Amino acid sequence: MMTFALDPNATHVPFDLLVLRLRSLLEEAGASEEVAAILARNCAACERDGTFSHGVFRIPGYLSTLRSGWVDGHAQPQIARVGASYLRIDAMNGFAQPALEAACEDIRAMIGESGAAIVALRNSHHFSALWPDVEPWADAGLVALTMVTGGPAVMPRGVARPVFGTNPIAFATPVEGGMPIAMDFATSSMSQGDLRIARDEGRRVPLGTGIGRQGRDTEDPAEILDEGGILPFGGHKGALLSLMVELLASALTGGPFSHEVDMSSAPGAEIPRTGQLLIVLDPQRGGNDRFGGRVAGLVQMLRDMGMARLPGDHRYQRRAKAAAQGVPITPAIRALFI
Amino acid sequence: MMTFALDPNATHVPFDLLVLRLRSLLEEAGASEEVAAILARNCAACERDGTFSHGVFRIPGYLSTLRSGWVDGHAQPQIARVGASYLRIDAMNGFAQPALEAACEDIRAMIGESGAAIVALRNSHHFSALWPDVEPWADAGLVALTMVTGGPAVMPRGVARPVFGTNPIAFATPVEGGMPIAMDFATSSMSQGDLRIARDEGRRVPLGTGIGRQGRDTEDPAEILDEGGILPFGGHKGALLSLMVELLASALTGGPFSHEVDMSSAPGAEIPRTGQLLIVLDPQRGGNDRFGGRVAGLVQMLRDMGMARLPGDHRYQRRAKAAAQGVPITPAIRALFI
Repeated sequence: MMTFALDPNATHVPFDLLVLRLRSLLEEAGASEEVAAILARNCAACERDGTFSHGVFRIPGYLSTLRSGWVDGHAQPQIARVGASYLRIDAMNGFAQPALEAACEDIRAMIGESGAAIVALRNSHHFSALWPDVEPWADAGLVALTMVTGGPAVMPRGVARPVFGTNPIAFATPVEGGMPIAMDFATSSMSQGDLRIARDEGRRVPLGTGIGRQGRDTEDPAEILDEGGILPFGGHKGALLSLMVELLASALTGGPFSHEVDMSSAPGAEIPRTGQLLIVLDPQRGGNDRFGGRVAGLVQMLRDMGMARLPGDHRYQRRAKAAAQGVPITPAIRALFI
Repeated sequence: MMTFALDPNATHVPFDLLVLRLRSLLEEAGASEEVAAILARNCAACERDGTFSHGVFRIPGYLSTLRSGWVDGHAQPQIARVGASYLRIDAMNGFAQPALEAACEDIRAMIGESGAAIVALRNSHHFSALWPDVEPWADAGLVALTMVTGGPAVMPRGVARPVFGTNPIAFATPVEGGMPIAMDFATSSMSQGDLRIARDEGRRVPLGTGIGRQGRDTEDPAEILDEGGILPFGGHKGALLSLMVELLASALTGGPFSHEVDMSSAPGAEIPRTGQLLIVLDPQRGGNDRFGGRVAGLVQMLRDMGMARLPGDHRYQRRAKAAAQGVPITPAIRALFI
């Protein structure tokens, strides 16, 4: 048994130590060594990069879900190539990240041969941010688009109860001479993680974030989470995007729709069993032989025109700082080491 | 020379007669017989289905652009298969619709073999709605996603001038036992067509639609079109989607970015030369052997929960009515027949 201790005066923890601690906790809760390693690195990376809504804050949910038996921490994903550019993965009731990792070589091979990979993942659990699923593809010179469903949380105006998940979409592209652009956003007005953090911190949220009891607009995150639903972002168009995610990430893959997710049989379970679609493309085959440079030019123009922050900027700044100083210790992190 | 006449008392025109009239006008302006036939049917379908912002209203723009020499009405698209599921099309400065039509058999063949088609189209002109580019694929049992850039029109808050096009996204899916769901929306708060119609009719638009002179918010569509820019829908997330469209529809395909489009060398030209990405997938290969039925179940649930109108409903109602009565004659239609 390893022991972990934090200096009571320390303000930062080394990234690798945080990963090790998360691994041991995940293993103790029932994840295999391999699954724990992948989830720990993923979760610590979210924390390090400032994606707090999917960082250490989520660890209690991972642990209680593993202990509930709702998710299989030892699942062996089943991978089937169903076309030159089409892969089907059954995560066998395990987590999405190890399933995608297991398919990594197949995806690379498909892209090498055909320039494209359509990856339909089902029976999978996703409790993290989506940018970690696309950023590595952009690091490898490819563009990647992914979307995932979740539990019922989002109700478009006029609808009686939550019918969609927060259904995030992430997209990443390489940028010549720079870090990738990797965007990741819920198709809801706010992610469930951010709404829970607001509730736990006693903060109100802007009107338009969600619906409370009896269909009324409210600023109370607890009321939105418990008695109503989150609104899609951007009104009707956001609702359409959310519907598209249900169709591509669930209907196409064979995963459950968000409204079908019911964890009541597994007390402690917090992570919906779901579906996910990932599309990875070699942009060089599209017709433009200097894709990365074209993107770099667009990015420079946008910065010159006043777009102060592009997707990823904030994460890379925090990442660089953490590489030098370690990850800032929050109360949630300190609690892990007691 | 054919002559066309409308009964001065008629309230409706047969769809096929409208198509014929549009064909002759497009041919007179310089389109080939084949190109004119495709564009006329496309435009008349938009009018018939109630997509007025891309219907007969657009004909003067088509004609002046053809006459300006900016677009080649006789272009022969160059099609290259660059992977098992990857097609590259150079529209050779012609319209997008005939180029996609020319590639139709190749796309079908790719999907039959591999289950997927990535179509990167460049050097193309798109002046219509996007749903006609995806609905036929859903009719054939496939899902389709497309996006296209345009001229500079959209400025996210904080940006000094328009940097993105209205960059629409369209998505269609088959629904077992029903008509396809086909969504089509600009990633801007409003399409340029709707904004122009508001301007021409002397209507104001809601605050938040766009920015006027000196960066101020305005309800004046003319000021937004001439001195400022349209805002993305849904704030920051809409701006990210618009950026994604620039990257996929322009950088990947080799088309110009929206901010690079400059028609000043061709007086009369109104249609940006652009790029477009189309992704068509066989949903049956994803892992769910009854995709259409799953979608039908979701659609029924959404209707039961109060979602009064799903994407396409409105169009199909108008289409059915037009099949019985003809297309309602507007002043714009009457003007074509004088």
